[in-house]
Amino acid sequence: MLSETFNIRFYETDALRHVNNTVVPQWFETAREPIFKVFNPELDLDNWPLILASFTVDFVAQIHYGKAVTIRTGIQRIGNSSFVVYQEVQQANAENEQVVVAKGTTTLVQFDYVQQRAMPISDAHRAQLLEWLVPQ
Amino acid sequence: MLSETFNIRFYETDALRHVNNTVVPQWFETAREPIFKVFNPELDLDNWPLILASFTVDFVAQIHYGKAVTIRTGIQRIGNSSFVVYQEVQQANAENEQVVVAKGTTTLVQFDYVQQRAMPISDAHRAQLLEWLVPQ
Amino acid sequence: MLSETFNIRFYETDALRHVNNTVVPQWFETAREPIFKVFNPELDLDNWPLILASFTVDFVAQIHYGKAVTIRTGIQRIGNSSFVVYQEVQQANAENEQVVVAKGTTTLVQFDYVQQRAMPISDAHRAQLLEWLVPQ
Amino acid sequence: MLSETFNIRFYETDALRHVNNTVVPQWFETAREPIFKVFNPELDLDNWPLILASFTVDFVAQIHYGKAVTIRTGIQRIGNSSFVVYQEVQQANAENEQVVVAKGTTTLVQFDYVQQRAMPISDAHRAQLLEWLVPQ
Repeated sequence: MLSETFNIRFYETDALRHVNNTVVPQWFETAREPIFKVFNPELDLDNWPLILASFTVDFVAQIHYGKAVTIRTGIQRIGNSSFVVYQEVQQANAENEQVVVAKGTTTLVQFDYVQQRAMPISDAHRAQLLEWLVPQ
Repeated sequence: MLSETFNIRFYETDALRHVNNTVVPQWFETAREPIFKVFNPELDLDNWPLILASFTVDFVAQIHYGKAVTIRTGIQRIGNSSFVVYQEVQQANAENEQVVVAKGTTTLVQFDYVQQRAMPISDAHRAQLLEWLVPQ
Repeated sequence: MLSETFNIRFYETDALRHVNNTVVPQWFETAREPIFKVFNPELDLDNWPLILASFTVDFVAQIHYGKAVTIRTGIQRIGNSSFVVYQEVQQANAENEQVVVAKGTTTLVQFDYVQQRAMPISDAHRAQLLEWLVPQ
Repeated sequence: MLSETFNIRFYETDALRHVNNTVVPQWFETAREPIFKVFNPELDLDNWPLILASFTVDFVAQIHYGKAVTIRTGIQRIGNSSFVVYQEVQQANAENEQVVVAKGTTTLVQFDYVQQRAMPISDAHRAQLLEWLVPQ
């Protein structure tokens, strides 16, 4: 799986004194950048071949300012033109153990904007995605 | 169902020239404020009795800057201490028909922070929630 | 002057329990939309004729969740190709008087992206801006 | 001066295909964390001794997605109870030279929330800030 570590930004907290729930999809989007590069190596904004169909997030524990978070990203399932990304946020708890504080899935579809339709994932791209397969 | 209409904010767009996907959970949180007030009429930040357990969003169509969006919010299911909010974003399409462009659910739990445990929803709160029940 | 009223969004607060400072430029951008329309009536993203040169914000008092804010927007000065927008945030204080809690200025430049240079403001646009002149 | 490097997050772009102007104050806040720690080593949210009085940002060049930005942070001036932070954003240009794309200042005040008044900066804190003095 892919791994990326962020410091929490102060403005990402809310008045309940932990990270606001709506921030997690922002972290997940950021951590999917290596997946964007599989389909769009130059991150060309004029030819972006992926659309986001849906996402889900489960919140397991409060996320606290002042301690880094690690986002782990893997591939859960690959279909014909779509695939499902699994991601989780880890942060150290009070006992200083790294635990999962949020997790979720995102369904992406390879999409041809010119023809306005879904496009099958090539074998080359499929092989790249499989390197990040989530262990079952 | 509850209804609230927003103008889209320019900073909510992204380089693909539509509203960024991560904005929809922010709109949904904002549109749930009447539900927060059922459990916390004064919006007292020291005694916030709800936690968010999970959310899902399905993206149906691109959301465009320059046209207002309407967020419709209702209650899908009420359990013992938790309940599920259904929300959708509507925007006018090219034919100027109001259509659903995104929809999702959020599971909230009534929570006692002092005792650190879920709390059953009272009959009075249940009755208020039922007024916003999503038609089946 | 122009006036627009927003409810504060919960995610706009931070762990100090008031609105995070970085939110005010976002509100100001949103409230400048009528000015964008002077130069770009259709809000055409392919021909956006304004660039932002600078902004300043002064924070006068804390901004609290749960009470609406009003953004007032006017024109402070018009140059050859640039102009300065003055904006302020008002919110009710503990005595329920509407007071200024933040204020700032933004310098915008009319810009021709094709020729990559600043463009003089036409008399027609100048006349429209002057209708929102801040009283001295 | 302090230095911190970020990847740009996709949601930080806008429909003009560069980073939205309102993001720069968010990066600056994030990069001031070492300064927060001078006054609040544990980042204790119950005793936050600084308030933000004002900020300014000058935008020098467009900031592009896909290339990291470096935020440089230093101290420009120290008064009795307030001080001014200077910050700039650097990014590689088309010739791959690191150039300043935005810069700004933030005025912070040491504040005692219990007594509700500004507090003089101690010699020890002053000495720490002076280590990051911006070269003149």
